[in-house]
Amino acid sequence: MTSAFSKPTALGPILSTIHAPSDVKNLRDAQLPQLAAEIRHTLIESLSKTGGHLGPNLGVVELTVALHRVFSTPSDKFVFDVSHQGYVHKMLTGRADQIHTIRTYKGLNGFLLRSESEHDAYGAGHAGTALSAALGMAAARDLAGGSNHVVAVAGDAAFTCGPTLEALNNIAETTKKFIVVLNDNEWSIDKNVGAIARYFNALQTHSTYAAVRRQAADFVEKIAGKAVRTLAHRVEEGAKNLLFQNVLFEKFGMRYFGPIDGHDLPLLVRTFEHLKTLHEPVVLHIITEKGRGYQPALDNPGKFHGLGTYKIEDGSTDSTSTPTCSDLFGRTITDFAKKDPKVVAITAAMPGGTKLEIFKKELPDRYFDVGIAEEHAALFACGLAAEGFRPFLAIYSTFMQRAYDMIIHDMALQGLPVRLCMDRGGLSGDDGPTHHGLFDIGYLRHIPGIIHMQPKDEDEFVDMLHTMAHYDDGPTAIRYPRGVIKGTPVKASPQLLEIGKAEVVADGTDVALIGLGTLFEMAERTKLLLEAKGLSVALINPRFIKPLDTQVLQTYATKCKVLCTFEDHVLFNGFGAAVIECLHDAAIHTPVERIGWPDEFIEHGKPDTLRALHGLTPEAAVEKVMKHLQPS
Amino acid sequence: MTSAFSKPTALGPILSTIHAPSDVKNLRDAQLPQLAAEIRHTLIESLSKTGGHLGPNLGVVELTVALHRVFSTPSDKFVFDVSHQGYVHKMLTGRADQIHTIRTYKGLNGFLLRSESEHDAYGAGHAGTALSAALGMAAARDLAGGSNHVVAVAGDAAFTCGPTLEALNNIAETTKKFIVVLNDNEWSIDKNVGAIARYFNALQTHSTYAAVRRQAADFVEKIAGKAVRTLAHRVEEGAKNLLFQNVLFEKFGMRYFGPIDGHDLPLLVRTFEHLKTLHEPVVLHIITEKGRGYQPALDNPGKFHGLGTYKIEDGSTDSTSTPTCSDLFGRTITDFAKKDPKVVAITAAMPGGTKLEIFKKELPDRYFDVGIAEEHAALFACGLAAEGFRPFLAIYSTFMQRAYDMIIHDMALQGLPVRLCMDRGGLSGDDGPTHHGLFDIGYLRHIPGIIHMQPKDEDEFVDMLHTMAHYDDGPTAIRYPRGVIKGTPVKASPQLLEIGKAEVVADGTDVALIGLGTLFEMAERTKLLLEAKGLSVALINPRFIKPLDTQVLQTYATKCKVLCTFEDHVLFNGFGAAVIECLHDAAIHTPVERIGWPDEFIEHGKPDTLRALHGLTPEAAVEKVMKHLQPS
Repeated sequence: MTSAFSKPTALGPILSTIHAPSDVKNLRDAQLPQLAAEIRHTLIESLSKTGGHLGPNLGVVELTVALHRVFSTPSDKFVFDVSHQGYVHKMLTGRADQIHTIRTYKGLNGFLLRSESEHDAYGAGHAGTALSAALGMAAARDLAGGSNHVVAVAGDAAFTCGPTLEALNNIAETTKKFIVVLNDNEWSIDKNVGAIARYFNALQTHSTYAAVRRQAADFVEKIAGKAVRTLAHRVEEGAKNLLFQNVLFEKFGMRYFGPIDGHDLPLLVRTFEHLKTLHEPVVLHIITEKGRGYQPALDNPGKFHGLGTYKIEDGSTDSTSTPTCSDLFGRTITDFAKKDPKVVAITAAMPGGTKLEIFKKELPDRYFDVGIAEEHAALFACGLAAEGFRPFLAIYSTFMQRAYDMIIHDMALQGLPVRLCMDRGGLSGDDGPTHHGLFDIGYLRHIPGIIHMQPKDEDEFVDMLHTMAHYDDGPTAIRYPRGVIKGTPVKASPQLLEIGKAEVVADGTDVALIGLGTLFEMAERTKLLLEAKGLSVALINPRFIKPLDTQVLQTYATKCKVLCTFEDHVLFNGFGAAVIECLHDAAIHTPVERIGWPDEFIEHGKPDTLRALHGLTPEAAVEKVMKHLQPS
Repeated sequence: MTSAFSKPTALGPILSTIHAPSDVKNLRDAQLPQLAAEIRHTLIESLSKTGGHLGPNLGVVELTVALHRVFSTPSDKFVFDVSHQGYVHKMLTGRADQIHTIRTYKGLNGFLLRSESEHDAYGAGHAGTALSAALGMAAARDLAGGSNHVVAVAGDAAFTCGPTLEALNNIAETTKKFIVVLNDNEWSIDKNVGAIARYFNALQTHSTYAAVRRQAADFVEKIAGKAVRTLAHRVEEGAKNLLFQNVLFEKFGMRYFGPIDGHDLPLLVRTFEHLKTLHEPVVLHIITEKGRGYQPALDNPGKFHGLGTYKIEDGSTDSTSTPTCSDLFGRTITDFAKKDPKVVAITAAMPGGTKLEIFKKELPDRYFDVGIAEEHAALFACGLAAEGFRPFLAIYSTFMQRAYDMIIHDMALQGLPVRLCMDRGGLSGDDGPTHHGLFDIGYLRHIPGIIHMQPKDEDEFVDMLHTMAHYDDGPTAIRYPRGVIKGTPVKASPQLLEIGKAEVVADGTDVALIGLGTLFEMAERTKLLLEAKGLSVALINPRFIKPLDTQVLQTYATKCKVLCTFEDHVLFNGFGAAVIECLHDAAIHTPVERIGWPDEFIEHGKPDTLRALHGLTPEAAVEKVMKHLQPS
């Protein structure tokens, strides 16, 4: 398996000398702005060829340079929340010459990884984990009698997130040496919502953004005293108006500083130098611009949060004409809601990713974006369902793990008809293991009363959503992939599917192929290969993971000599495992071969690359099946 | 199956006339204190025979009476957080004459249940769900153009909990009609921790508790004006000092009232009458005493939070001489930590339930109680593990669902050696479906790299904890039951177990019984019954759920005619399913019978009752096994 890396971007004269954080410390102050400019240039150029989280990284260039200027990893620990803003950190810790490989198979991961570098203290792809994990590191440091610093860097959106808030409640009584950087750009993936976002905004606008720079200079003057008299930005006002007392953080027992301009490198450096000396937990509130230094990203921060390849000149991207599952989901649910006043839609900060932005635009009253707060989202949906509404809860498969207790304890136990719409169900590709949705059959199938399904194509996807809309007896779940399934056209009016009923697509007597959802197409290709060998091949679209169509399975297990299941999920506790269990309990001994992901975390890369690597191909299926059909 | 209900307690003269909330409204004001007294009498007497959450219910008598006096369920909605404080609500909504059946099979559930009464708007057994679910109901009301009220009642401990904090962030922009009652007794199950608890405490002590009553009267005077001039408690001070501006709630866009005396019934009634009229979301902060009216409960609020039967006279309970798994856990981990400075212990507000109180007492520096904050607890443990510590994270199996994403995304993906210690793994009994730990094999087995085990007896339990302490390569998990397994003595020095190695306890050639953990003892009894039929019976203690000892399983599946697995877990995605999968993939067709819980939520009741009801008995196992051994 060879990797197709993009062509390396030539690094600038300063950046090319940075092989470790110590090299950042050796630069003269005057060189820092150029380093920042070179980093931005490399980001914009390199990501145009690989895709990635451009906007967030352009926003933290100065912050990251300042952190490495003042602190010393790996002994000091930086914990970046979500860590998609870690590209600059990677470039300053010996990985600048590999940045062109990011998100590519065998290349750098798009997030921080403990296994990738000793400078990556903690990995993450889900939001809201940084403060808690960093606090654990601070507690470890205190217990071990160490003197290193722990810095958690979190965006404003992380503060809508339960774990972050739980952490805030514990910081003051856990340690006296802890730095939280609140990187406030008013954007997470989409525009933030909720009281906390409003509150941060009030902090910002208390003095207008234009004035922040000068105030920040004053602030540094105050904390650093005579040492900063040479600073360009002179003191003009008294100290008492400079710091907004941030009551929220103070209630949590932390000392609050800011807001300051997060693109003012000298200011950041001096501020961190000061914060290092304090013996109390602190929050530094910095204001940054997502996409700083690249006009297309500034003009469209939502698009440039994370994207594929783009043209550097104007930021344009190839538009695909085939609608993705997300497109179809957003459109379909909106259309349902127009006919049924009980349909409501809930997202956890992903109106763009889930395409509920369509719903938001057309039916704003029944659209709820609760922030990065999957637990609350699920419970809020339960409250709506308890009152007779039909909530569609759109959360990626991997993020639904956050709402797991609510699915059991609130939805299923009470039989509340919340519709779990799990986008990115299956391999997510370039984003890697933090974003693959490979566990949802495993974590849902044992929950009593839940209905779980996966469509073989776009038309069936809409039928399934329609079926979910009409099922009020308990929770239903659907998993669907990132992007396109088969690109099939969707018929004019969706049809109701019978719950628990599989579709027999082709009859056959030698082999039965059972292709779940996205991998139905692989089963189709396998069928052709087997038929070329003269075999009679049945093809089944199971539609439902739970309840399983035991009758169809048993019929074909009796009729055929071997079965083969296909699933975009790990094999343990997966769909094929359910088929094996079903046949075993019916005392049918027909062998079941399984195509699916192994019991390991799957790396990042293109789905086709990873499928081939792990044996998810028609050829592998044929080989497994043929073992059972050798001439006897 | 007959139920053994306790003898009904004679209801007092007023309580016996309360068959619906409307009866509460028909009482004269002067009768309310006696109603409260009669409720307390019934609670104290009845629960002495059934056990239950005495302390919390004694604390909310006046609150609940006031709620039913002012609001009208079922059109108005009360959402009680955790809902173990819902007994009084049950008594006022037509269930007073059944209160003696509480927590008994076929009797009232110990929590609220939507299926038990139309007055139970929302069920719960886990903390922190009330505000979110109630907010969903308020949103539903607003969308439907309704005028009913939604009241969420949550203890102070719920405010350490992520979902509650996520909900707070969303209230102000979701609805203008929403009442949160903060029932503040400074206790959740154990003493609260964290900044928020300290903050609430500061609000309380701002004026001493003794002064609350008078201030509260002033407060009512102010809000209700002339109508309360007849109130006994006269105004003596100006209004401006009466209300503590609760900045935290105001930051979340809510209007704050209080704190007021939560045992002053007329005050509560008048306050709710006023709050009903407001057009903004409000928080009413009330101060209550857990255990109010029963001296033993006041003296020992931890014990009387929830307990079994007790003597009314002095609150004494039978002490069992056999240490429970929790006892053993607390003692063992503390002993480990004394020898290994890297061992740390983390609980999410359960020092008593998990018995980490032993650790807390002897090694307070390495003990962390983070509040009801399972997500943070897990992440905090990850931070400690990342820095080389050996964290034992003690969270009940059912509550571990809250940390599910962290187990995958933070622990397993990064290979961080956090020790998941899942007390109440298996049926929890009287508490019912919200507390049974019947899903953890299902939700853990597909996670790459995790080690999962369950001990057959106390001695092996300690061996397993010892083995976990020495395993630093990734996360490990152990499930152990509430109470006692077999009561076996524990040897002086624990031994290391080989990871993934089962114990063959007895050889045999007809039947192989594979008894996991708690149900190993049932396999032993089954063995005796089968041997009485002249069969040769192998007995295997699998020890490890993951990795499975495939070799031993395949050996005995080859040697014997039938296997039977025993597990205190649902069958779907359970241990037996893993055995079936393992044998299938080895092309071994020996039938595997399975003893375990069916695909439904299991009700409350004594474990023996429920096991018999659902076919978890040696006799049922014998019958299943014998089907395969009929003379051929």
